[in-house]
Amino acid sequence: MEKIKKGDLFVEKVKFTQDQVNQFAAISGDGNPIHIDAEYAAKTPFGRPIIHGIFAASVFSKVFGTQWPGEGTIYMFQDLLFKAPAFVEVEYTAKFEVTEVNEEKHRGVIQCTLEDSDGKPIIIGQAKLMHTERF
Amino acid sequence: MEKIKKGDLFVEKVKFTQDQVNQFAAISGDGNPIHIDAEYAAKTPFGRPIIHGIFAASVFSKVFGTQWPGEGTIYMFQDLLFKAPAFVEVEYTAKFEVTEVNEEKHRGVIQCTLEDSDGKPIIIGQAKLMHTERF
Repeated sequence: MEKIKKGDLFVEKVKFTQDQVNQFAAISGDGNPIHIDAEYAAKTPFGRPIIHGIFAASVFSKVFGTQWPGEGTIYMFQDLLFKAPAFVEVEYTAKFEVTEVNEEKHRGVIQCTLEDSDGKPIIIGQAKLMHTERF
Repeated sequence: MEKIKKGDLFVEKVKFTQDQVNQFAAISGDGNPIHIDAEYAAKTPFGRPIIHGIFAASVFSKVFGTQWPGEGTIYMFQDLLFKAPAFVEVEYTAKFEVTEVNEEKHRGVIQCTLEDSDGKPIIIGQAKLMHTERF
């Protein structure tokens, strides 16, 4: 299995639908109308429904667990700076960069950012992962 | 509206079903079998399906957005230290403590922990929130 090294990059496009956000509201119990009620959201400064920040951030977790490093990843830490709201039906780009690798402990530190199409950061985070084969 | 002060506490019980975890896998795209395939999970060191860490952490976001401080909360930051796996159909307790309040900026810092019934930490986090009326 190919090793992941310091400086390696990964990019993933993501778009969440209103239906996915409604389902997340139902299963998480977070039914705040700012996420699911377009009429309510229209009266807020955001103007339209925003995605739950923790759900938008799930793209990081999805990439780690299923793509890069992929199956076998142990998720040790994640921080999330919510810089701007993410809207439904808008394509965002999740960008990843490996900033540290400890081969002995099979651990990596990854800078992860969710950006809009103008490159404006929506979420800025850092993850610490373990993968016995890839780090 | 009653102000939230340094030292204030909040507690919330949470239990996720396999069905909720399956739905989260579908809407996030994170269909790693460790979360949704009991046979696969039985052959791992965990022995049974584990909840996606970011989904287990959604209890923090749910409490902030809907209960405490509640509607109007702006979620600025969250960090998550994943200490141990969370399993489906098991009751966990989310515990919150306000560690800092800046009344001028209407901001609060909250220590948040997800614990099992023995008090063992599953997730340890810190959140930074803004709420114009409650902080």
